[in-house]
Amino acid sequence: MATLEEQAINTLRFLSADGVQKANSGHPGLPMGTAAIAYTIWTRHLKFDPHNPGWWDRDRFILSGGHGSMLLYSLLHLTGFDVSMDDLMNFRQLGYKTPGHPEFGFTPGVEATTGPLGQGLSNGVGMATAEAMLAKQYNRADAELFDHHIYGIVTDGDLMEGVSSEAASLAGHLKLGKIIYCYDDNRITIDGSTELSFTEDRGKRFESYGWQVLFVEDGNDVEAIDAAIAKAKMDERPSLIICRTHIGFGLPTRQDTSKAHGEPPGLEELNGAKVKLGWPAEPVFYIPESVRELYTGVGEKGHQAWKEWKETTESYARSYPDQWDELENRMEKRYPVNWEAQLPVFATDEKGMATRSASGQVLNALTNVFPQIAGGSADLTPSNNTWIKNSSAFQADNHGGKYLHFGVREHAMGAIVNGMAYHGGFIPFGATFLVFTDYMRGAIRLSALSHLHTIWVMTHDSIGLGEDGPTHQPVEHLASLRAIPNLVVIRPADANETAEAWRVAINRKHGPTLIALTRQAVPTYDRNKYAKSRQLEKGGYVLADLGEGEPEIILMASGSEVSLVMAAGQRMADEGVSVRVVSFPSWELFNSTTPEYRNSVLPAATTKRLAVEMGVSQGWEKWIGDEGVIISMDTFGASAPYKQLMEKFGFTVENIYSIAIKLLNKKR
Amino acid sequence: MATLEEQAINTLRFLSADGVQKANSGHPGLPMGTAAIAYTIWTRHLKFDPHNPGWWDRDRFILSGGHGSMLLYSLLHLTGFDVSMDDLMNFRQLGYKTPGHPEFGFTPGVEATTGPLGQGLSNGVGMATAEAMLAKQYNRADAELFDHHIYGIVTDGDLMEGVSSEAASLAGHLKLGKIIYCYDDNRITIDGSTELSFTEDRGKRFESYGWQVLFVEDGNDVEAIDAAIAKAKMDERPSLIICRTHIGFGLPTRQDTSKAHGEPPGLEELNGAKVKLGWPAEPVFYIPESVRELYTGVGEKGHQAWKEWKETTESYARSYPDQWDELENRMEKRYPVNWEAQLPVFATDEKGMATRSASGQVLNALTNVFPQIAGGSADLTPSNNTWIKNSSAFQADNHGGKYLHFGVREHAMGAIVNGMAYHGGFIPFGATFLVFTDYMRGAIRLSALSHLHTIWVMTHDSIGLGEDGPTHQPVEHLASLRAIPNLVVIRPADANETAEAWRVAINRKHGPTLIALTRQAVPTYDRNKYAKSRQLEKGGYVLADLGEGEPEIILMASGSEVSLVMAAGQRMADEGVSVRVVSFPSWELFNSTTPEYRNSVLPAATTKRLAVEMGVSQGWEKWIGDEGVIISMDTFGASAPYKQLMEKFGFTVENIYSIAIKLLNKKR
Repeated sequence: MATLEEQAINTLRFLSADGVQKANSGHPGLPMGTAAIAYTIWTRHLKFDPHNPGWWDRDRFILSGGHGSMLLYSLLHLTGFDVSMDDLMNFRQLGYKTPGHPEFGFTPGVEATTGPLGQGLSNGVGMATAEAMLAKQYNRADAELFDHHIYGIVTDGDLMEGVSSEAASLAGHLKLGKIIYCYDDNRITIDGSTELSFTEDRGKRFESYGWQVLFVEDGNDVEAIDAAIAKAKMDERPSLIICRTHIGFGLPTRQDTSKAHGEPPGLEELNGAKVKLGWPAEPVFYIPESVRELYTGVGEKGHQAWKEWKETTESYARSYPDQWDELENRMEKRYPVNWEAQLPVFATDEKGMATRSASGQVLNALTNVFPQIAGGSADLTPSNNTWIKNSSAFQADNHGGKYLHFGVREHAMGAIVNGMAYHGGFIPFGATFLVFTDYMRGAIRLSALSHLHTIWVMTHDSIGLGEDGPTHQPVEHLASLRAIPNLVVIRPADANETAEAWRVAINRKHGPTLIALTRQAVPTYDRNKYAKSRQLEKGGYVLADLGEGEPEIILMASGSEVSLVMAAGQRMADEGVSVRVVSFPSWELFNSTTPEYRNSVLPAATTKRLAVEMGVSQGWEKWIGDEGVIISMDTFGASAPYKQLMEKFGFTVENIYSIAIKLLNKKR
Repeated sequence: MATLEEQAINTLRFLSADGVQKANSGHPGLPMGTAAIAYTIWTRHLKFDPHNPGWWDRDRFILSGGHGSMLLYSLLHLTGFDVSMDDLMNFRQLGYKTPGHPEFGFTPGVEATTGPLGQGLSNGVGMATAEAMLAKQYNRADAELFDHHIYGIVTDGDLMEGVSSEAASLAGHLKLGKIIYCYDDNRITIDGSTELSFTEDRGKRFESYGWQVLFVEDGNDVEAIDAAIAKAKMDERPSLIICRTHIGFGLPTRQDTSKAHGEPPGLEELNGAKVKLGWPAEPVFYIPESVRELYTGVGEKGHQAWKEWKETTESYARSYPDQWDELENRMEKRYPVNWEAQLPVFATDEKGMATRSASGQVLNALTNVFPQIAGGSADLTPSNNTWIKNSSAFQADNHGGKYLHFGVREHAMGAIVNGMAYHGGFIPFGATFLVFTDYMRGAIRLSALSHLHTIWVMTHDSIGLGEDGPTHQPVEHLASLRAIPNLVVIRPADANETAEAWRVAINRKHGPTLIALTRQAVPTYDRNKYAKSRQLEKGGYVLADLGEGEPEIILMASGSEVSLVMAAGQRMADEGVSVRVVSFPSWELFNSTTPEYRNSVLPAATTKRLAVEMGVSQGWEKWIGDEGVIISMDTFGASAPYKQLMEKFGFTVENIYSIAIKLLNKKR
């Protein structure tokens, strides 16, 4: 007779396998192999309340191998989250809360969107960073508001991905001891045995990062897992618990083979497993009453814990009203009323400044009003201008710091920043050169898919960076980032547009914003003479109508090229042509305005349109129309002083002027 | 009095520093810190011939920290490569061979384009793989054609990047003992001390991967470096030699600081270093005569070695004429005359097959004629259909295998495949899901920038993959890849177009090709009734003119959506509308045809145009014009069976038909 515990574990196994079998799609192997690990974490350690999935001080549980999603959905259902039996029975179907891979914001209790391997493991590093920062800043001896762990189940694939190497190295450096990951060491990947490609000494590797590494010889041994987790909690280092598991545990012929990984087992194999583990073949989605009670009890116990914490917050609020106010505001994404007054205003200046410099000033002004702004650079702090002057570097011995030295680890930076956003209480940012968004697209995409409030600060945004040459010069990057749904890309034209870009980014609470900034100086426009920079929020706006009457031609550009079209336009106006100059910092923002507004900026009647951008032309056709012309950069750049490059590639006032005149004189 | 050796090392230091100072841009720190390492490798170990930079059996030298490029250029100049003093004196200037970061194909003797960190280190794993494969296949007991090492100077940044963790783990697994990397352990990064973010135990980490790790306590100690390299050569494992160095060695105030890394030292600091190291301040770019002789001698010794090797090849050619023929052809990129006859022809089939399946068949047919095809998948072999049936997996104990199990390591896969292409003798390929190109863009971009003949096989190319959901469904990826200059992206519509896509990829010898393939079945068209699939090479072509007379409307699509526009078009034609159906698999190929051809496919007169693609609309405006309409996928997808998704997102014959009719009836 199976014990209640065994039944509770088998319930996870077979709810998951039944879900996959019914959907005729999915991954039974991970849930069947790690059910005992999940059981141990969730019933003996995890602090959570199904009625308050947003509890600030809950432990976070990350299923980094997101393909095993049915395991998580089963846990959520059983412990009382708003995930129904109907959802389980409609795994991977439209309109249910149980998509193929867990999606943050879509299913209550899902802490991170996982599936792309390595991300969840790395997000946890950001969550642990967030926990440490909040604990340091707000906990008081008589009222501890933050003290939670980051649990995870991580897989072979997670460990193989480079992003997790980067993140784990940083986690070890920062001694983020709240991280406790159980590694599903099943020795099988899609291609077959891990002997084919993954024979490194994983334990030794994580030790080299400064982790505590523990071993559980039998991944079904609840007591051993429990003991290891207890030991992990005692250590100041992050912990990796290597659990020897068996993929598809119980399946008669598929256990320990790659066939168990990613396809429905088939009824015969599934029922064979049920027989083997003493489980009834029918009903499917079977939950013994005692098992239901067990998990419900765990959920209710968690709810009690939440109530106690709630009482703590009340006494905290009485004792420390200012801190409480500040904390509540940041956790609930409420802003000080007059925060926008803190945005610097930059004086008109022909010589101007690099927008990366302006960005540094704006960021530092904002950190005075927003304690929740934290982040850093992938080892380009002086170049990205992201140092937070009123703070210090977050380190193992300085949890009060807000600045993160990510090291040369762009992808982990992305995932860690996302993790801080998942955690809550932060407006996190990450910075590098625009060209190296290529190294972190996996994370940028997930920030967009998960509606995270993250800010990506990307400097050196064109061939304008000069001598470093084509390896460092972004050309296709604006286009490739604009292509990502739900990511707002802004390339400000001057210092004041840069301040406005930050305003947009701060106000965009449910999606990421990427700000592309120059290395080189650009003029700061006279906003009394030209349009107000506030108009940046519309994505595209009439910076100036030069000359008299309706515009005969529209010159449009983003970022540093605005100064070029402005000068070319002025020259044409001096010659009697009526020229409209449009500053076009963000396609996404422009697209979100009304058709009327868009037509007011780009009137259908004005078909002579010239766009100028030091990136690939792709997509500009939409704005210039059939008669329009684009001066773009459709090849890789070159290594030389930037003014020579701009000359070589046609980004000069002279060239723009001459092409514009040709366009103007061209017969329809 | 400095020894000749010291002078030879200081020559490297000060040529580099003078170059940076003159350019007023660049990175003096690495060359000054690692000059002795470079000297030791180049004068005591590296097998090379400046007169034959393409020598098949040369050792490869990779400066993975590409920012230290002046070091490499100095070495190339001194040893007799075609890099002149004028080039050195015009570092980072237009028209010279000395760009900011080393560029393959641009400067003789540069083995890999480096600068984006981690890439060079990982490229070397591909080079070592290539060496092992060629040695196994062609070496004979009496005639060894391949026996060379892969040397590299790798940096903190290289080690921090995830791509190098992935690649190093695989190199250890594969026991690629020809790899000998000297690690510039200078303990300084741009943000400051490595204590800020990089305190892992690097030696232990590389040991965990299965590397031999050696230590050199003084990075200026030529004998110690020499001994370590000698030891590395004796070991069957790849070796990491950790050399304690000093960034900007010699600079009076900047040595061992981040100020030494990436900016000109200034004359005072530079001359201070010269005084300190006993070097004349003038002339700048000073090369003592004896030093010049020394390096020239090394180059000439290398030339002698090449001559001996050349003799071996002659005896080899006599003894093994067939093998020699085959080898010479592959090294020189010459193909068998009738190879294209091997391309499978797929029979008309309404039900059809997934293009990934067709691709698997084509690949396997090609491996029968091309011994140089080698590659693999990032642990998605059964899904990508890339297994090479007539071969086996390349492993430490099986260098005869051509298939690479990369593990779940997309970025390293990209860099390793690039490394094989850099090496020569291969048409290498790498495969994963299209969505995970995000994880390897750094490498894909470099394949394009370096004009490498690599083939990227990307399956599961749309929401057509179904239940795995938005984390796995590419939406923005076609657009973002099309944006990369010099990358040809092809999305074939059926099995026969897939064969043609491979034909293009094989024939495109100086640039990468990415083939996007479906998970789901698509019809195989009747090529007697419709246009020949060979037309794929033009990128876009008239698949069918349905109905009578000039087309009233053009329906265009790529990949799996071609079958939808075909059916919608047929329905309109049945109702008497004259419809042109354009299969549009590749924008880049279409762009490379003549304007006349393009106008013949998309006549200016036909302004009613509808494009259909399950990706973002970005860029399609160019082809549809102001009156056109796009049915696209501008949001993330969802998790459900794929037919439901296609319904939900409007990719049905019914929806296309109705939008097309509306477009047709719309007044201008």
